[in-house]
Amino acid sequence: MPDGVIYLDGNSLGPLSRAARDRLREVVDSEWGQGLIGSWTEANWINLPARVGGKVAGLIGAEPQEVITCDSTSITLFKLLAAARALRPGRRVLLTDAGNFPTDTYIAESVADISPEAIELRQVRADAIIEAIDDETAVVSLTHVNYRTGAVYDMAAVTKSAHARGALVLWDLSHSAGALPVDLGACDADMAVGCGYKYLNGGPGAPAWAFAASRLHPNLAQPLTGWMGHQAPFEFSGRYEPAAGMRQMLTGTPPVLALSSLDASLDDVVDAGMDRLRTKSVALCELFIRQVEARCAGQGLALASPRDAVHRGSQVSFRHEDGFAVIRALLESKVIGDFRAPDIMRFGFAPLYTRFVDVWDAAEKLAEVLESGTWRDPRFSVRGAVT
Amino acid sequence: MPDGVIYLDGNSLGPLSRAARDRLREVVDSEWGQGLIGSWTEANWINLPARVGGKVAGLIGAEPQEVITCDSTSITLFKLLAAARALRPGRRVLLTDAGNFPTDTYIAESVADISPEAIELRQVRADAIIEAIDDETAVVSLTHVNYRTGAVYDMAAVTKSAHARGALVLWDLSHSAGALPVDLGACDADMAVGCGYKYLNGGPGAPAWAFAASRLHPNLAQPLTGWMGHQAPFEFSGRYEPAAGMRQMLTGTPPVLALSSLDASLDDVVDAGMDRLRTKSVALCELFIRQVEARCAGQGLALASPRDAVHRGSQVSFRHEDGFAVIRALLESKVIGDFRAPDIMRFGFAPLYTRFVDVWDAAEKLAEVLESGTWRDPRFSVRGAVT
Repeated sequence: MPDGVIYLDGNSLGPLSRAARDRLREVVDSEWGQGLIGSWTEANWINLPARVGGKVAGLIGAEPQEVITCDSTSITLFKLLAAARALRPGRRVLLTDAGNFPTDTYIAESVADISPEAIELRQVRADAIIEAIDDETAVVSLTHVNYRTGAVYDMAAVTKSAHARGALVLWDLSHSAGALPVDLGACDADMAVGCGYKYLNGGPGAPAWAFAASRLHPNLAQPLTGWMGHQAPFEFSGRYEPAAGMRQMLTGTPPVLALSSLDASLDDVVDAGMDRLRTKSVALCELFIRQVEARCAGQGLALASPRDAVHRGSQVSFRHEDGFAVIRALLESKVIGDFRAPDIMRFGFAPLYTRFVDVWDAAEKLAEVLESGTWRDPRFSVRGAVT
Repeated sequence: MPDGVIYLDGNSLGPLSRAARDRLREVVDSEWGQGLIGSWTEANWINLPARVGGKVAGLIGAEPQEVITCDSTSITLFKLLAAARALRPGRRVLLTDAGNFPTDTYIAESVADISPEAIELRQVRADAIIEAIDDETAVVSLTHVNYRTGAVYDMAAVTKSAHARGALVLWDLSHSAGALPVDLGACDADMAVGCGYKYLNGGPGAPAWAFAASRLHPNLAQPLTGWMGHQAPFEFSGRYEPAAGMRQMLTGTPPVLALSSLDASLDDVVDAGMDRLRTKSVALCELFIRQVEARCAGQGLALASPRDAVHRGSQVSFRHEDGFAVIRALLESKVIGDFRAPDIMRFGFAPLYTRFVDVWDAAEKLAEVLESGTWRDPRFSVRGAVT
């Protein structure tokens, strides 16, 4: 971590680990530079999507063959949602919550548009999801941990309700995998997708992973039918025959550099163990809430995250009318959080590398910024791209 | 290049350049490692897709704003073909040649499947394409340089015929960009896609680029509507509003490591200049054909590539009944070519780094392998993944 920086944005982009840095050097200098085309077999590049997927599986309660890594989160969502929709013909509703991450909603609209049957995208409030599931529901598409507030769905309850009505559930675990324990198997979950560059630290633009329960594999089909999803890609057959299992979710040539980086960085998360990480995450978040509420009372902050850790992911969000400027001013104090419109200041506590002293100091700096009013400086309210 | 290796497979995976290696170190150690999330703006990661696209544009006769880099070739093809199809409603044929690269055909089938109107994928022989274009043709989807034989389409003639019938043409330039001069502007081309890891040397699994003529931009629409294709991605709006121009072809978060590598490696190609590269490429290919035909006469080889350089890309293919075993035996002599079923031995001559002495030596080694019969050793006929 750079000197003096308190990084509370690992939920947007995880930091570089030594393992990822070293692995990238080896892949670039040796595997690509020296091994050239032969590394597809010699360095086993060809199996990277499945190998990395298998490693993710251990973090989310899945079997290794149920997970594969492939394209961006948005594209992976498209493939899974189209596949889920195709598994429930005759049902005319895709259900999501109105506060879902925008890309999830845009992709759901597209899947609805390309459906051969008329299909409606129905958006309801998060607390009305379970009662909105009915016999017309094909797929419920939800983000497990809300990107704004960190509020967590009860995965087991939603899945059970959906299954009782004959619907499937697709979980976006972008803010869950590596952040809190998830047990897809125990929840009898159907499908899931997650980001590789947040809590898994795979690097900027790292590929996402896709999960589908083994029981669904025989009937999977998705429209991005590229050669890497073919059962025999190197026979260059003129007819598409999907590979068995999750390999059919692949499309083009896998991004070897990014997958290698993700592969290496995952080891740190796996080694730490999700239960230990969760224990620390809860303690970090609780300390931050306590300190901020004690030190910043009367400064216009309101907790936007659930107060009870059971309902909260690994982030803490506070509302503030001028949250954008406050986050920008904090940045000048080397405390890196981020902002989500209209008024959410978001602080991610990645338990793998965030220290308790960082949490304490971050709360102190936030109090200083608010008390001193430095955030009122006009230069902090100029909008730029804050990811 | 590794010691003693004669690398004639740059049409499958281009080698590592010093520029790409150095750039990757900087991106990993400094931009990601030190700059963290701030590098999206500070290091201008957010504009990498357009910046790299603009660099590719100079190699293919396009305007900078007509090209963007994004996802794998297969996925990029899907987006462009779906967009092209939507520009010609009421026309019920996607036309391609029966020898197109498999992924191009699979993707065309998928685009046909998701079309709201009935649409037929019609496959004809390469020499029958122009006469097969009729008033029912929505899009003609062709690979400019055939991946097996290196045969080149007359881009201007096909485009002109298609336009005369009101159809669009989508060119796959995976074996063209960086290999021979292409002038999309002069041909009045509609759309094109190309691979980043072949002649452009972007690294294993590097992203592809997408081209659409400016005149088509106002009416483009594609189904992979992720947040990065939104006109204001960081407003997190619930409604998808496509960005202007090629940015709407983006979907998820761009793969920064791979794009940076491609960005750096492109400079070598741009600096060399496509006309000079073509002159050398033709000379390399002609030397190889002459030497192989002189030294390997009577050994069962038949030229599979066009003899006239005007009709040939930057590769030379020979048919041989046991081509697979011959290529494997050659590999042991450190001459790296590749094999495409059923009988094509493929040798790529990337003019940027292939030397005339390499060509001469490769022909000698091929003659040795064929004369000595070493390729008859059973271990050379065991099939594995040869990409």
